[in-house]
Amino acid sequence: MSLTLLSPLDMHLHLRDGEMLANIAKESAHTFSGALIMPNLVPPVSTKEEVIAYKQRIMAAIGHETFTPYMTLFFKPSYDKAFLTSIKDEITAIKLYPAGITTNSEGGVSGFDVEELRPALEAMSELGIPLCVHGETGGFVMDREAEFVSIYEKLATAFPKLVIIMEHITTKASVEALDRFENLYATITVHHLLITLDDVAGGMLKPHLFCKPIAKRPEDRDALLEVALKGHPKVMFGSDSAPHPKHAKESCGCAAGVFTAPVALQLLAELFENKLAPLENLQAFISGNAQRIYKLKPLAKTVMLEKKSFHVPSDYRGVVPMYADEQIAYSIKTVE
Amino acid sequence: MSLTLLSPLDMHLHLRDGEMLANIAKESAHTFSGALIMPNLVPPVSTKEEVIAYKQRIMAAIGHETFTPYMTLFFKPSYDKAFLTSIKDEITAIKLYPAGITTNSEGGVSGFDVEELRPALEAMSELGIPLCVHGETGGFVMDREAEFVSIYEKLATAFPKLVIIMEHITTKASVEALDRFENLYATITVHHLLITLDDVAGGMLKPHLFCKPIAKRPEDRDALLEVALKGHPKVMFGSDSAPHPKHAKESCGCAAGVFTAPVALQLLAELFENKLAPLENLQAFISGNAQRIYKLKPLAKTVMLEKKSFHVPSDYRGVVPMYADEQIAYSIKTVE
Repeated sequence: MSLTLLSPLDMHLHLRDGEMLANIAKESAHTFSGALIMPNLVPPVSTKEEVIAYKQRIMAAIGHETFTPYMTLFFKPSYDKAFLTSIKDEITAIKLYPAGITTNSEGGVSGFDVEELRPALEAMSELGIPLCVHGETGGFVMDREAEFVSIYEKLATAFPKLVIIMEHITTKASVEALDRFENLYATITVHHLLITLDDVAGGMLKPHLFCKPIAKRPEDRDALLEVALKGHPKVMFGSDSAPHPKHAKESCGCAAGVFTAPVALQLLAELFENKLAPLENLQAFISGNAQRIYKLKPLAKTVMLEKKSFHVPSDYRGVVPMYADEQIAYSIKTVE
Repeated sequence: MSLTLLSPLDMHLHLRDGEMLANIAKESAHTFSGALIMPNLVPPVSTKEEVIAYKQRIMAAIGHETFTPYMTLFFKPSYDKAFLTSIKDEITAIKLYPAGITTNSEGGVSGFDVEELRPALEAMSELGIPLCVHGETGGFVMDREAEFVSIYEKLATAFPKLVIIMEHITTKASVEALDRFENLYATITVHHLLITLDDVAGGMLKPHLFCKPIAKRPEDRDALLEVALKGHPKVMFGSDSAPHPKHAKESCGCAAGVFTAPVALQLLAELFENKLAPLENLQAFISGNAQRIYKLKPLAKTVMLEKKSFHVPSDYRGVVPMYADEQIAYSIKTVE
């Protein structure tokens, strides 16, 4: 049994920089046609020169693969229309981080005062630049995302023409917000479709499944599954694949992030098959919806997967993937 | 500034066996007058001979310290009155584990059918042997304890003269059950008075704060603090101090348990001072309530603590304690 996916897109990817970039970029570039590249380097990617230089480093790291890094800029309230106009052609979106909420987000937004954000967000709205948001407050870990929904609603109401993407949503509350506002969209990771907090901390503690936002309750995962499996038109796949060296995960203070890039398509194929979801819904989730929402024309890439057991490596050059050393049901057969 | 505690008791302690027992037993025996020793060895302590032999190994491990190991037996529904009568003088309580719920609990109870449990629990009730319970269902990790409250209520109703101790409670739901049933009591750890899930998984993931039951929500901790700080007469200190080797905590599947034995009294002194709770409430929590509930006459031990910064060691013979390598506000001054 096999299935074919056309031009898969990963609309939320961390490629890091330097040695890590060199170590892991090909894992995404091999099977994906393109990916939206997160800008939370140290320092964050926030000028035209930095975007261009980072894109060049990514292209060097992926070698001969057919792959488009869709670049993003780290949001700052100080961005004005002249600056955004000048950078518009180099970027696909701008990513907003609340300050201090995740890896390398220290320079993010610390208040969500609409008037303070208005110049930048109105300019983005006019220029057609989508806003990607890491939507968590500084509250209790299980409530952070649900608490942020009121901020999404405030932004969606104040900037009704701005495309706002709720990144890596993990809760029923975020899913429900999707249909209340025309300009709210979402990405969902593969790991949040598969695990709950039980998998992270219900048996042994599993650092390689620890991420931000943390996996939530079973009813939250059910809500995510419902929209993903039906290929809901406002929902896109975004892996949030986030590599850390093994020692940074297995230590007395483990960094947040699940490395799924090399196994994401195989896991999605298995999940959609197990749940009896039509292949066209997976195609919409993995590429079609993103093409429409972001107005992308991705490079042609045809990925054939087959139902053949794949032993996930224990690590990819020092980075431990999800399901390391376990068997998963699908393999990549060909990429053309 | 200093304060004096008389005959501190730790009513829930894991001393393990073999090399680990030899490595950590003195940490409890030095500052505590006695402790209720959990029976979840491999195999579990479930015969008179095993109780006696384990107690001897503990006495050998603690050396010259003045310390009473109050022994427990691993509950089995098959225990009958003749057996319990024969073992009564060797044990202080019997510990019930739902099957598979925590470290070395595979042989525990897998159903809570009152009629199946009646012979053993009625005999315990008649003989005055308290029942200590690890109260978690197999449900979602944040709900397990609250879901178990209905089982506590069933047991408390069916066996109204049986002293039932809800061990290491972590939720508002358990606190509320305390006052609904005359024969329900509880132990509370020091770490559950200090941390929530935010401390375990809200920033970096902290394996050394991972335990079962997992730390819960802020409102749960507040409920625990309320009864502990007022020295609620049905609530006792039980550290649930549970050592694991460092490599078993900092790995890709971290074992559950926080090692607090060497710092518990210092942390409680600081907490009660910070919260302006009277010293007599701490004395009730740390010893008085347990003496009354369990009818104990502990060995005389006078522990003087002083408000003087203590640098917690990075490990105690390979076991990482809570607040390893950090400063805490109180030190043990003298033990007599």
